[in-house]
Amino acid sequence: MKTVIGIDLGGTNVRVAKVSLEGKILQEFKSPCYAQEGPEKVTSNIIELLGKIDDIKSCSGIGIGVAGPVDTVTKQLKMSTNLPGLAFYPICEKIEKAFGLPTYMDNDANVAGLAEALLGAGRGHKVVYFIIHGTGVGGALVVNGQVVSGKNGYAGEIGNIIVTREGEKVNHLNIGAVENLASGAALIKIAQKRINPNINTAYEIFKLAKAGDITALDIVDKMAFDFASACSAIGHVVDPSIFVVGGGVVQSHELYFPLVKKYYDQMVHEGMRGVQFIPAELDEPGILGAAMLPISQGN
Amino acid sequence: MKTVIGIDLGGTNVRVAKVSLEGKILQEFKSPCYAQEGPEKVTSNIIELLGKIDDIKSCSGIGIGVAGPVDTVTKQLKMSTNLPGLAFYPICEKIEKAFGLPTYMDNDANVAGLAEALLGAGRGHKVVYFIIHGTGVGGALVVNGQVVSGKNGYAGEIGNIIVTREGEKVNHLNIGAVENLASGAALIKIAQKRINPNINTAYEIFKLAKAGDITALDIVDKMAFDFASACSAIGHVVDPSIFVVGGGVVQSHELYFPLVKKYYDQMVHEGMRGVQFIPAELDEPGILGAAMLPISQGN
Repeated sequence: MKTVIGIDLGGTNVRVAKVSLEGKILQEFKSPCYAQEGPEKVTSNIIELLGKIDDIKSCSGIGIGVAGPVDTVTKQLKMSTNLPGLAFYPICEKIEKAFGLPTYMDNDANVAGLAEALLGAGRGHKVVYFIIHGTGVGGALVVNGQVVSGKNGYAGEIGNIIVTREGEKVNHLNIGAVENLASGAALIKIAQKRINPNINTAYEIFKLAKAGDITALDIVDKMAFDFASACSAIGHVVDPSIFVVGGGVVQSHELYFPLVKKYYDQMVHEGMRGVQFIPAELDEPGILGAAMLPISQGN
Repeated sequence: MKTVIGIDLGGTNVRVAKVSLEGKILQEFKSPCYAQEGPEKVTSNIIELLGKIDDIKSCSGIGIGVAGPVDTVTKQLKMSTNLPGLAFYPICEKIEKAFGLPTYMDNDANVAGLAEALLGAGRGHKVVYFIIHGTGVGGALVVNGQVVSGKNGYAGEIGNIIVTREGEKVNHLNIGAVENLASGAALIKIAQKRINPNINTAYEIFKLAKAGDITALDIVDKMAFDFASACSAIGHVVDPSIFVVGGGVVQSHELYFPLVKKYYDQMVHEGMRGVQFIPAELDEPGILGAAMLPISQGN
């Protein structure tokens, strides 16, 4: 049986798993990632965890998923906030040397998108657009089973797509960036003003909307419009076979997705209408997608 | 020497050419395309032209570039305004049968993008975003030498990207669609109102701007801002290695491209800045790109 290794490298913990091509986790080890002790320690700890995997030399390759933009050519992080010193550190090279296995790296949204495209809701589709639509908004483009990371690893930074010129500069994102209008964080801010200052989850707002609260419905409707506007830009660029959407909104997809779809269809050419928005379906997209990186590279 | 066949199928004429892998046209035939006589005649005429090519059986494959959305899986036009009856007609299948060569089809913007990516200004770049920025605005995404056409063949319909919510519905495009604000056609309309009702080319407006006319400069500046806004959406989706821009604006690129680049850099993440906007460089992107279709498919 062909197997691969996935590594989910977070700012606190790291997990390594041996995975089958069908996405079954066969063996798994977890530990703190020792971020504060620097990249040598982070790397030696991962190598130690990998050493526990049975018959690792028979695996086809290793993939690492990590937060932040990744240069997929040099296989290095380009910037890191929660793993000090790991930017431009040759972690893949070191792991490759330790086990003689081809090792790849990509950012967490891209690996999650790859997992959904190969093993999850996007299975069988040629052009999958995956969106994490939770506290923030991020995406990943998967074409024929390969992630398109772009020149700088920033492909999928769709939270910064401008959907209106109105508004003020509130953070590092563009004025009118979709993430500032149609994310969980944005929704809560708006609802605190318009409904109740004690609201602190997006889920509460969706719950009120489902129960028929007019203001909550209006907030959700506007969010769907703004999100659909960003999706229509994505659609005109890549015309995906399917949108797979993960993140917090999934639990309210029965109310939310039809609104998004309605506005999307209004904002694209007639021949592009009818593309489905479907919920992501994997419980472990991070580690599974990391494991799929060597597969997507032909190993 | 490996050779391929390109077919540039327009609404009036059709050209077929034998092309080297380096993009040299070795032999070429042209005729009316007989659009009004129906798809059988269009096809038999192309087969007749192809029959004139020396040693066609030694070629690696055939590619057809045509206006309108193409289903690249079934290799059929999905809609056709200037070639009646050609939508859903198995023209590739018929040509394949006649010569025993793999035959592919894509729309004219996509084949032009492919030509620029493989043979022109985008040579050597992994992710090329090609834009036709003339009377209208259209694009093509080429990743690792392959066009991404999308589910419905509408990938690259970037003229419909919304860059502002202001304005009115003027045609089949979205309110605030970039093509209605930042195309040659849009520019002329604006300049007729603001400068002189007799202006009827975009080039005149650029010429006035170069000469220091304040109103013309303002019009060009606003156009660059609107165009850059659409480009920033493209950037956040695919983070291209390079933007290759063809069409009418190219003759004014020394004035126009630096403005676009300035606004683009303001509208993308810091790590994405510095991507170049360079002029398309091929004289014959249509027929060369059509010829590159079989190459991009591995033939």
